[in-house]
Amino acid sequence: MVDSWQEGAAKSAIVDFVARVTKEGGRDYVPPAGRIATFDNDGTLWCEQPVQVQVFFLIDRVKQLAAKDPSLKERQPFKALLERDYKTLLSHGKQGVMELVAATHAGMSEAEFEKIATGWFASAKHPKFDRLFTKCTYKPQLELLGYLRENGFKTWIVSGGGVDFMRVISEQTYGIPREQVIGSSTKLRFEIKDGRAVLMKLGELNSFDDRDVKPQNIGLHIGRRPILAFGNSDGDLAMLRYTIGGSGARLALLLHHDDAEREVAYDREFKLSPLAEALDKASECGITVVSMKRDWKAVFD
Amino acid sequence: MVDSWQEGAAKSAIVDFVARVTKEGGRDYVPPAGRIATFDNDGTLWCEQPVQVQVFFLIDRVKQLAAKDPSLKERQPFKALLERDYKTLLSHGKQGVMELVAATHAGMSEAEFEKIATGWFASAKHPKFDRLFTKCTYKPQLELLGYLRENGFKTWIVSGGGVDFMRVISEQTYGIPREQVIGSSTKLRFEIKDGRAVLMKLGELNSFDDRDVKPQNIGLHIGRRPILAFGNSDGDLAMLRYTIGGSGARLALLLHHDDAEREVAYDREFKLSPLAEALDKASECGITVVSMKRDWKAVFD
Repeated sequence: MVDSWQEGAAKSAIVDFVARVTKEGGRDYVPPAGRIATFDNDGTLWCEQPVQVQVFFLIDRVKQLAAKDPSLKERQPFKALLERDYKTLLSHGKQGVMELVAATHAGMSEAEFEKIATGWFASAKHPKFDRLFTKCTYKPQLELLGYLRENGFKTWIVSGGGVDFMRVISEQTYGIPREQVIGSSTKLRFEIKDGRAVLMKLGELNSFDDRDVKPQNIGLHIGRRPILAFGNSDGDLAMLRYTIGGSGARLALLLHHDDAEREVAYDREFKLSPLAEALDKASECGITVVSMKRDWKAVFD
Repeated sequence: MVDSWQEGAAKSAIVDFVARVTKEGGRDYVPPAGRIATFDNDGTLWCEQPVQVQVFFLIDRVKQLAAKDPSLKERQPFKALLERDYKTLLSHGKQGVMELVAATHAGMSEAEFEKIATGWFASAKHPKFDRLFTKCTYKPQLELLGYLRENGFKTWIVSGGGVDFMRVISEQTYGIPREQVIGSSTKLRFEIKDGRAVLMKLGELNSFDDRDVKPQNIGLHIGRRPILAFGNSDGDLAMLRYTIGGSGARLALLLHHDDAEREVAYDREFKLSPLAEALDKASECGITVVSMKRDWKAVFD
């Protein structure tokens, strides 16, 4: 069930935890309703290098827009995006990127956005791994999601990525229904358009689902403290600590990208979403660090 | 399965709709993942007269607070609440009431609030119907929720009531898990308190889940247009129109409280949550009006 996980401390921690919380009559038993597992997406369930999947989508979206309005090619941060000048792009920070996302995703209905993103995912490929982005998911993680669900868990995504963007692929890619996806979001406006009720996506940020906002959004959407959480960056630390902070058996996991051969080795220097504090505090906080290199037999399918 | 529903147009509309969307190969077939049904709570699933259940909770909460701080007894809107002076209370409006709720619910963790509300629900009774508030639910609606779930629907609450308040009873009372409850909410703050991560409830409104905000929150939380929605007031009209606005088979239902004998007859004059525009536009919008008097064999269990 978790065959791509190497025998070792991380796999044991997972298998032991699941056995404990599902053992009826056991001291650590958790009824199915309480078996909430939350996963970050970028860098935890799929590849986020050299930039997050949604940034590639953004580039292609801006290309489409620039074909109609060439002046965009000279305006920042559109210029940086089109020239794949990640340094300038990164200088806008994570929140800046999300605001850019909001700007390019706005002024259309949910359904219109859905159509655009669906079309993109059908053919867009990762430049390094030369495969569809939906195939840039980590095999051991897909197995883990399935394993948890087989054991009565509800699996959720809690990501800094755009919620509408992830919902396009969450069901087919991860087996996670749209309503179990929490992410960054733009504000929506209810409108009657040509006699039909629609939700319009506005160019205003509603929630930037990162760091402390992750547990806050878990409180809003789920209303229950997860018993298992999995992340890979400092943006996940609050969620991991929130998960561990409950009573009873808890498991918090942190993926360390230390595998330059099969993926990319990075942590502190990844400006868009660094891993530093979480790695330093992992042991003290009771977070289990997963080494991609040592703990995974395979990375991609 | 929906035995407490009288044979007639409303029951037929429900049974026909469910048959159509669940018939594999049929023109109106909807796969289980798309079978989203959203229900308002106050006045739709349980009684909201003479005021919403949460207002009774508020009164008892203010009583507790006033026992420690007697000056509250002379301050509005606390004074009006304690004296059950609903006219003055109503003068603060629906949003005012929610802000009062936020004020009395704030400054504590989720878990502390949960404990207080759980204790209250265990013994508090409705003054007119002399039964636990959790027994002031409508029998035909409990049957309908179960009937929909048996037919592969996911049932949701989308209510102006406080999300944390409803989540205390949603599973046991309605069979609706906490994460399928959308409601008004206060902002939350992630904190490390005595070394433990907690979510603190702040006295600031995050979302007042009424009118246009209902479909907007459905977009945020569910990310899918419901195919069935049930409401009872003008606060539900946007949700009903949003539901109907999708393609394929859709059903929007509006409960009309016209049964003075078994419950309370009211609509336009209920200032806290009137039913006027939705009733006037029901036919034009394609909304099925349900008469409590004619369509329900029983009201309470």
